[in-house]
Amino acid sequence: MFENRQKRTELSELGEFRLIDRLTKSVATRQKSTVLGIGDDAAILNFKKNQVLLSTDLLIEGVHFDMSYMPLKHLGYKAIMVNLSDIAAMNALPTQITVGLAVSNRYSVEALEEIYAGMLLACEKYNVDLVGGDTTSSTSGLIIAITVLGEAPQKNIVKRSTAKSGDLIVVSGDLGAAYAGLLLLKREKEVFEKDPSIQPDLEGYTYVLERQLRPEARVDMVERFADLNLNPTSMIDISDGLASEIIHLCEESTLGCQIYEEKIPIDPQTVTVAETFNMHPVTCALNGGEDYELLFTVSQSDFEKINGQAGFHIIGYMTDTVSSKNLISTSGEAIPITAQGWDGLKNKETTRET
Amino acid sequence: MFENRQKRTELSELGEFRLIDRLTKSVATRQKSTVLGIGDDAAILNFKKNQVLLSTDLLIEGVHFDMSYMPLKHLGYKAIMVNLSDIAAMNALPTQITVGLAVSNRYSVEALEEIYAGMLLACEKYNVDLVGGDTTSSTSGLIIAITVLGEAPQKNIVKRSTAKSGDLIVVSGDLGAAYAGLLLLKREKEVFEKDPSIQPDLEGYTYVLERQLRPEARVDMVERFADLNLNPTSMIDISDGLASEIIHLCEESTLGCQIYEEKIPIDPQTVTVAETFNMHPVTCALNGGEDYELLFTVSQSDFEKINGQAGFHIIGYMTDTVSSKNLISTSGEAIPITAQGWDGLKNKETTRET
Repeated sequence: MFENRQKRTELSELGEFRLIDRLTKSVATRQKSTVLGIGDDAAILNFKKNQVLLSTDLLIEGVHFDMSYMPLKHLGYKAIMVNLSDIAAMNALPTQITVGLAVSNRYSVEALEEIYAGMLLACEKYNVDLVGGDTTSSTSGLIIAITVLGEAPQKNIVKRSTAKSGDLIVVSGDLGAAYAGLLLLKREKEVFEKDPSIQPDLEGYTYVLERQLRPEARVDMVERFADLNLNPTSMIDISDGLASEIIHLCEESTLGCQIYEEKIPIDPQTVTVAETFNMHPVTCALNGGEDYELLFTVSQSDFEKINGQAGFHIIGYMTDTVSSKNLISTSGEAIPITAQGWDGLKNKETTRET
Repeated sequence: MFENRQKRTELSELGEFRLIDRLTKSVATRQKSTVLGIGDDAAILNFKKNQVLLSTDLLIEGVHFDMSYMPLKHLGYKAIMVNLSDIAAMNALPTQITVGLAVSNRYSVEALEEIYAGMLLACEKYNVDLVGGDTTSSTSGLIIAITVLGEAPQKNIVKRSTAKSGDLIVVSGDLGAAYAGLLLLKREKEVFEKDPSIQPDLEGYTYVLERQLRPEARVDMVERFADLNLNPTSMIDISDGLASEIIHLCEESTLGCQIYEEKIPIDPQTVTVAETFNMHPVTCALNGGEDYELLFTVSQSDFEKINGQAGFHIIGYMTDTVSSKNLISTSGEAIPITAQGWDGLKNKETTRET
């Protein structure tokens, strides 16, 4: 759909070691904690007094992304964001990543260079070092396996399990936009498949498309929390939709919650797209996923620190009624929250059918 | 070929979160450096004064393994060994792993539990903590992405790039056996495919089959080096065959080498199998791969420390002639060493055609 490949070098022309050399020749290291990057059996790191955060994610073609509307460079960028988001969700700064790539011979060397260009752009922007990886062939499609490390002083690290009853529930930005972008892209793909002469009609939807194709991890929040002298009591990133994530926070903290529909931040463009598809915008926020915003709780005594602060949206509070996780609708009705978010194993049955 | 599945639970019956719960319910943590394992956005680790080693590997069905002769539990075990071997090759102890699994619906929950059982057995034996992961569906087959962390005092870490001219080249055990085992398994698979009533004829080949199906990483060598007060000057693990690895050591250290054919340690069972397949046993050692022995260099002044020690085989020495990497044959001929080892991208063209 958006492909434009000028030169095609077959993977078999280079072989693994020369390919890795070519892909990683422009990799620089920036972090003080990186002692040795790519090129040995393992990278060498040194974290001194800080604690180390470690997380890993798999992205599979046909499950997590569709190459017909995902530009390769954006895919590389997004793959990094998905991982950085997990470190930000611990209130820590990402420091290093490793990248595992498995590709079928459908992909050229130039295609992999595009993916790497997106990854390295993300690394540069977020001051993260690419310190190792593995590149191999796959029997079908593209598989991206990323592991990310981060660091933080022990006292700063925020877990999912430490919310207290009465804590305010806060979101770092608007929700549902990435899913709205996906709805548009899928519609245009269908139109294109029926008649390839029709150009995609995506004008006026820049924001929701960017949220889907080129999300940003909220690493900036780590600094913001420090500036505000604010310690969230618990935190998680919103990758699978608000419903799924708030359930995680409640279950890990053995608490319940009340969330107010009218408080859930949704961009007007998301509302427009949702209505075009006859969906309730709140459904996009609850079950859409891929927003990569942070969902966190703060003590009520910290209310003044966030009240009126741009980008912080208080959407409810934690309760000690473990069995009760409710969305209070605009009409005042209490609707039990259930997780219908993105599930990598059940994706055929959920709202996302990539 | 060796399959025996009694109960089959479909992956879609559980969904991602319940599957992860089920697979990880028996995961224990043992390492002092593990502060928090599975269950949050990231694991929390604390390495204090030691440096951290980080490595990652992808294993793809149909490229790196063949389910028709690889028992699931062995596959899990081997997947961990492949990674621990990279940490041992830095003269460091492995501490944590993360496991990414992508599976098609061909696999049942019980099949994944078997793989996990093998992984956890490996973790227990090597005192390694499984601290995180990702489980998702794939469009075809099974993909295993493992990242391993390890630790060591800075002064102990051994890189590839630090060999000196005149250093002795040493191997920690015999070579070529894993490849001999693969040759046998592939032959029996062919026989089985032609006539499923014929049972595999693998008697008398336990050693080479174990080397292929259930290798051990040489983590024990890290302790052995400490006991002998021996600091290798450079080191790499033999995953792609001796030829490929010695070229890595030479190129990273900007040196050449002389290796003596008669000194290369090869088990008699490997010799028997190689001859059955009309191959020179040394070819199995040079190009076979998957031995997971350590290839390292030591200063000549340390000769007495390893001379006569069981399991250490001095096979040659490093030279300052960068352009010259030679195998000296039994007849005294100098044969340039070329890398024809396992290449995940070119595998169709190499001796390994899994």
